Amino acid sequence: MADSLAELQGTLDAFIEERNWAQFHTPKNLAMSVAIEAAEIMEHFQWCTGEESYSLPQEKRAEVANEIGDVLVYLLQLGRVLDIDIIAAARDKIVINREKYPVEKAKGRSVKYVDLD
Amino acid sequence: MADSLAELQGTLDAFIEERNWAQFHTPKNLAMSVAIEAAEIMEHFQWCTGEESYSLPQEKRAEVANEIGDVLVYLLQLGRVLDIDIIAAARDKIVINREKYPVEKAKGRSVKYVDLD
Amino acid sequence: MADSLAELQGTLDAFIEERNWAQFHTPKNLAMSVAIEAAEIMEHFQWCTGEESYSLPQEKRAEVANEIGDVLVYLLQLGRVLDIDIIAAARDKIVINREKYPVEKAKGRSVKYVDLD
Amino acid sequence: MADSLAELQGTLDAFIEERNWAQFHTPKNLAMSVAIEAAEIMEHFQWCTGEESYSLPQEKRAEVANEIGDVLVYLLQLGRVLDIDIIAAARDKIVINREKYPVEKAKGRSVKYVDLD
Repeated sequence: MADSLAELQGTLDAFIEERNWAQFHTPKNLAMSVAIEAAEIMEHFQWCTGEESYSLPQEKRAEVANEIGDVLVYLLQLGRVLDIDIIAAARDKIVINREKYPVEKAKGRSVKYVDLD
Repeated sequence: MADSLAELQGTLDAFIEERNWAQFHTPKNLAMSVAIEAAEIMEHFQWCTGEESYSLPQEKRAEVANEIGDVLVYLLQLGRVLDIDIIAAARDKIVINREKYPVEKAKGRSVKYVDLD
Repeated sequence: MADSLAELQGTLDAFIEERNWAQFHTPKNLAMSVAIEAAEIMEHFQWCTGEESYSLPQEKRAEVANEIGDVLVYLLQLGRVLDIDIIAAARDKIVINREKYPVEKAKGRSVKYVDLD
Repeated sequence: MADSLAELQGTLDAFIEERNWAQFHTPKNLAMSVAIEAAEIMEHFQWCTGEESYSLPQEKRAEVANEIGDVLVYLLQLGRVLDIDIIAAARDKIVINREKYPVEKAKGRSVKYVDLD
């Protein structure tokens, strides 16, 4: 992975600070923004099957990377504004899920019950 | 920030590997999952104003942290499956946005034109 | 209201039939499409406050109308494919909500507890 | 179809009026609500394939109907607050799409290009 998340956070902080944009970043607006960008990722997979979704043409893959970048930027900013460590939050969810889906029970479970959350 | 993203990726890889769940993680399903969890973050801000959204009660803040964790987990897994470095993707978007929103023009722009993407 | 929903359904059926597009309208893809279009409505309100959102400029209002139209088209098609009467579904939810939020209790409830669903 | 949309609108108006809830229904909050409920529809199709999504178990189908009802309720209310006729909006989109996707060109088009919007 290219950079650590902390470096990215610093780059983003500077970008926002220079433009005086933090004033518009209410948690409500940022939550809305994460969702808007998440839908833009989905748009690239709107009509293909699950199987086909593995084989994106190169230019589409680049667009998906852009939207993934957008989601992460807004998610980082939401964590910043709410003082939530997003990596710790994700790590805590995996711990919770280990309990919820013990390996002995989780292996071979039907697709209807597969969840990372 | 608690851990690097690379460590989190490793923890997540193991969790999924142990349960043999990668088979269900088509990019299409993962894109859908990022969006589903993004909506769960939004739900905590559905009826409050932007101002009020800064002052979440403690138990709500913990729930929001959970959903943020979920979004990041699915976003990481989507990047893993598509072989997209999500930090590089976010960093590239900030570079693009620096060009798109030069500081001299961006400062003082009306709220209708503020975008991180 | 301009037309009944049944007339619209008929117009939509013909449009899809002529192009032989029903084959792509799996419930999963249609659910994804409703969500994609819902996010496009949200995009018009991404950075404004709740108060400001009442005063959309004319051209924005026209764009919002377009996205609302898209959501309804996909929702109708999803109902068609799953054989779900969407008006009956909405009516049933209001009945459920009448029980859940009796008037004596609902009036004056804090904004955090206002739900139509 | 069970009721006309106009009747449903009337029922919804009364429900909201009795509880004095219109004050919370800013267009921004309603747009957010449509998206939140759209994600709840998606959740029922998160891990299945497109083919499997046609065969929902009965109890799941009832839950999907509930979420479809929720989306329609919020969409109606958003139209009400913005004074947008949602049926006319949908009808206008179909007209636009007829031009955009003439039958001769639309038939047999690859799944990547199928759009109702």
